[in-house]
Amino acid sequence: MNNKLQKYKQMKKFALGIDIGGTNTVFGLVNKKGDIFYSDSLRTKNFSKPTELVKKIYEKWLSIKILLKKNENIIGVGIGAPNGNYYTGCIEFAPNLNWKGEVYLSKMFKRYFSLPVYLNNDANVAALGEMIYGGARKMRDFIVVTIGTGLGSGFVANRHLIYGHDGLAGELGHTLYEKNGRLCGCGKKGCLEAYVSSAGLIKTVNEILLNSKQTSILRSFNNKTLTPLNIQKAAIKGDKLAIEVYWKTGTILGEKLADAVAITGPAAIFLTGGISFAGNLLIQPAKEAMEKNLLPAFRNKVNILQSELLSKNAAVLGAAAMVWHKIT
Amino acid sequence: MNNKLQKYKQMKKFALGIDIGGTNTVFGLVNKKGDIFYSDSLRTKNFSKPTELVKKIYEKWLSIKILLKKNENIIGVGIGAPNGNYYTGCIEFAPNLNWKGEVYLSKMFKRYFSLPVYLNNDANVAALGEMIYGGARKMRDFIVVTIGTGLGSGFVANRHLIYGHDGLAGELGHTLYEKNGRLCGCGKKGCLEAYVSSAGLIKTVNEILLNSKQTSILRSFNNKTLTPLNIQKAAIKGDKLAIEVYWKTGTILGEKLADAVAITGPAAIFLTGGISFAGNLLIQPAKEAMEKNLLPAFRNKVNILQSELLSKNAAVLGAAAMVWHKIT
Repeated sequence: MNNKLQKYKQMKKFALGIDIGGTNTVFGLVNKKGDIFYSDSLRTKNFSKPTELVKKIYEKWLSIKILLKKNENIIGVGIGAPNGNYYTGCIEFAPNLNWKGEVYLSKMFKRYFSLPVYLNNDANVAALGEMIYGGARKMRDFIVVTIGTGLGSGFVANRHLIYGHDGLAGELGHTLYEKNGRLCGCGKKGCLEAYVSSAGLIKTVNEILLNSKQTSILRSFNNKTLTPLNIQKAAIKGDKLAIEVYWKTGTILGEKLADAVAITGPAAIFLTGGISFAGNLLIQPAKEAMEKNLLPAFRNKVNILQSELLSKNAAVLGAAAMVWHKIT
Repeated sequence: MNNKLQKYKQMKKFALGIDIGGTNTVFGLVNKKGDIFYSDSLRTKNFSKPTELVKKIYEKWLSIKILLKKNENIIGVGIGAPNGNYYTGCIEFAPNLNWKGEVYLSKMFKRYFSLPVYLNNDANVAALGEMIYGGARKMRDFIVVTIGTGLGSGFVANRHLIYGHDGLAGELGHTLYEKNGRLCGCGKKGCLEAYVSSAGLIKTVNEILLNSKQTSILRSFNNKTLTPLNIQKAAIKGDKLAIEVYWKTGTILGEKLADAVAITGPAAIFLTGGISFAGNLLIQPAKEAMEKNLLPAFRNKVNILQSELLSKNAAVLGAAAMVWHKIT
């Protein structure tokens, strides 16, 4: 018996962490310390049915398994996906995926893997990754904001995600920034996401280009070539208009972060997702605007930081963290 | 031993629940079921030092204790107070109390009572009361908003209050409603509390009286006689201007509640405090505005309700709930 226990402890255990995005699905084997031992990716859009993607991942896993030693195995599957609901194991009406309606993804994975399966939305997964493997390792209360195609957020209170009664909490991107403001992808007007996101950033560039005569590198781009990365590069080169765009965007973000701080009292706010690579171009104005809008008792306490996992495979780590966090 | 245990179980146990307000301090003996067996009050403003109030409450307790049977006793002290910090047991810079700076109230009570003492701010205490004895008994996630002199809020996620890293979370009243809007008591401009509170309601009356020629009962009051109760009475009588004031106030509340729902995903929102006696005058516009500002996935799920403890001694019950919730 003791012998068996010894052997059990020597086993190398992994979690299969999967990040399902609108374009690509990335997955990897992650040990408890957060080292990624293997990773691969598939084009999400190549799979018209979610079961086909699940089957393909399972086949990929079988081909990896052959390479593993006898004492190595996976103990569970963690998945991050847009609109993934932790409570129901279901992707619910994700606008950025080809699979429409309700997709019971956890069930599909369980059928193939016969292992515990955890699904969550991408922002919550990012928050769990930050908590277990990133900058929030020692924090009880913090917020992770992912800024990319959209603006997602994961709120952690007392080391637990705030899921809300239906698993849908954490939608900072759809709080109101400006009454009757820009039309948001969700159908409402003036949502934060309509200003602070890839599309929001580009819209702000176009607005400023129209209303000012300032010279700018950005005038040489057209609608197809103007990307957040080009805006970032211009700003880093000192392009005043590009810097102004980030300042405006960061200020809007900071104003709404102040509300989030007043409600949930985080020790820090971590930014992740493509747009947050802009770093201080975004963080500095966000911090200034947030501080201005905070109650005196909250001031000079809450840092806005880049995610420590920004350059790593954050979503795969976060998805794996669900497995480790639950099972051990 | 068994005999002793029997006797112990037969003991009638109470929590001493204390509600410290700017004007009055109310306290009572509360059993686990939430029945109040004795209650009394003192004028908070008569006590220039907090220790004097603590001493007086202790003396009152001694005089009650004489009347109790041998097997009756209190098992702890729960206190709700403005700016009371659960983590530190300290009242921190409460603008509505005469005691300035940091008041380590828990310590003072422990010195007299030699029992566990729990301090919390008034909105959190209201939320705990609602969770244990009120309408949120079966809910895991909900919000309580207290609307009176100010606007306080207590957020519960997964049956736990959201305290934030420093114990100061839950300040919905100081989230931004209108940029460069009304000056708030906190020194910022445009806070929700500057619109949805006793003073906010009166300010809205005065603004509408100035800018409209509509006849109204409210024109017969002056600055000293115009109170929230008079506005409520006028509205109930069908005074159009008074109804408009509530509609405007409720609409503002609803818009900001939508943000709070997007972030924390509550099953319901409970209104308490003096202003919430207005009931549907406030709830109906708040609900309409909230729904309009919610993501489709959140709509028609979240009720706005009057607190079930509104006519009861809610704060004393909530303060006692901390004792029962912690000890048993």
